[in-house]
Amino acid sequence: MTALIGIDWGTTSFRAWRMGPAGEVLDSVGDGPGILAAAQLPGGFRQAVEDSIGPWLGTAPVIASGMITSRNGWVETPYLPLPLDAAALARSLTLHEGIHFVTGAVSDPLGPAPDVMRGEETEIIGHLADGGGDGLFVLPGTHSKWAHAKGGRLVAFRTVMTGEVFGALRDYTILGRLIQPGAGSADAFRRGVEAGRQDGALLGRIFSARTLALMDRLAPDQIADYLSGLLIGDEVAHGARDARGPVTIIGRGDLAARYRTAFDIGGIRADIAPPGMARRGLWEIARRGGLA
Amino acid sequence: MTALIGIDWGTTSFRAWRMGPAGEVLDSVGDGPGILAAAQLPGGFRQAVEDSIGPWLGTAPVIASGMITSRNGWVETPYLPLPLDAAALARSLTLHEGIHFVTGAVSDPLGPAPDVMRGEETEIIGHLADGGGDGLFVLPGTHSKWAHAKGGRLVAFRTVMTGEVFGALRDYTILGRLIQPGAGSADAFRRGVEAGRQDGALLGRIFSARTLALMDRLAPDQIADYLSGLLIGDEVAHGARDARGPVTIIGRGDLAARYRTAFDIGGIRADIAPPGMARRGLWEIARRGGLA
Repeated sequence: MTALIGIDWGTTSFRAWRMGPAGEVLDSVGDGPGILAAAQLPGGFRQAVEDSIGPWLGTAPVIASGMITSRNGWVETPYLPLPLDAAALARSLTLHEGIHFVTGAVSDPLGPAPDVMRGEETEIIGHLADGGGDGLFVLPGTHSKWAHAKGGRLVAFRTVMTGEVFGALRDYTILGRLIQPGAGSADAFRRGVEAGRQDGALLGRIFSARTLALMDRLAPDQIADYLSGLLIGDEVAHGARDARGPVTIIGRGDLAARYRTAFDIGGIRADIAPPGMARRGLWEIARRGGLA
Repeated sequence: MTALIGIDWGTTSFRAWRMGPAGEVLDSVGDGPGILAAAQLPGGFRQAVEDSIGPWLGTAPVIASGMITSRNGWVETPYLPLPLDAAALARSLTLHEGIHFVTGAVSDPLGPAPDVMRGEETEIIGHLADGGGDGLFVLPGTHSKWAHAKGGRLVAFRTVMTGEVFGALRDYTILGRLIQPGAGSADAFRRGVEAGRQDGALLGRIFSARTLALMDRLAPDQIADYLSGLLIGDEVAHGARDARGPVTIIGRGDLAARYRTAFDIGGIRADIAPPGMARRGLWEIARRGGLA
């Protein structure tokens, strides 16, 4: 019996789960169209849902989180202020075309550096509901999120554009000119992290990705890993200053492992959260909202 | 009577001067082809010189500095180690096709972050020869250079990729999506400098260029100036930590003025050097080398 259908719908990704009465996964889809692709379909977002999980529909309530509630998504919803918990998100669900949409969060909306997220709040809620404690969280990605939870609530967060800036530097600046693809170099990544942890202007330190290569001290197929390490090393060194205990990495695969390496080099304990935090958060919010 | 012909030849610029017996300017050219354009001419670099200053040739020695001695230039010359002065540069001139080429400088070649320059060393020598004292210099540009002079010699420098990264962020990341061209906003630039001076990861602080715009607290035609201020503010805040007195800005026009504004906001005195430092440096090096 299906109790809930959950969708984590991002700019370039669509994942969905059919869940049973205890929130267990009965079925899942991992490769639906992200928002950019879905918007191009003749039937738009509705078609994307029908194509991806059509046979599930009508069997249980549907809940969705992520950038799908942004200006370029299906329905734009207002950001919720901090502090934030599952109950607050449940009270603010937006019902649109039969789907309950979880809205995003805003940090410091009137301050000098306001910040926003859509989707990561659900992953953090999932972690907290899963028995994970308060503390500092990092969700690596195109736009990494660093978040604090206290008393079971999301109390602060900050976006760091590490992934997107890495791509722009590699593809559109002189740092990329000498890069050749390779098998990946853990050693070059670690050297980059060390350079990223140093003081001084970041836009100065990145130049070493070129000069070391010019001087044959960094092979062409190591430059990209070095630069990745340098940016992540800078991000982690700044972010971990606020850590009062182990940091939780909410992410998957190689990228999560890279962040853990950067924490290790800085002497900070970091644990990678078990997978499934988005689904777990959707379940918790739905449960609080009486949907499941 | 012509005593010396000097060329400041960069990647995208070519400036030349015909100088008299006291180094005074008799004639000048400001719009010759930079290295990238010159390399495309049928007659290459030789043609670029003939086209730009052909009538001057044969009347006096020719001296040239800048990226023209890099791997993509006319003749690649080895970098000189620090500390460096006009006499050392004069001893290392490379005569190639009738032109005396000034070579560049390398900082910390065996250390973790080696650095290089070609052309800026000549401008700094010009400033020192012109009666400017020791201290901290900044040469703003695509790749800004921060340099220290002591005892009349260039003793340290560092490259900061502010200009190039600004372009990559504006043109190839989400920060540029909302930008609209405008008349330029000094206020937005100053707000950016303030944000750039704050602590925290730079790749986090730049995200405010998007969130402030999303929240209608930064107009679309102010975003670029805000982002420019943020990057320059970060650069100047880091660079000025080493200042022991007034900083000298070697640069021109709007960009030099922006840097001075950023120093002002930080409470650091900065003076813009008089124009002509490249020519003045070429004269000094030629004089030390017995060419003029």
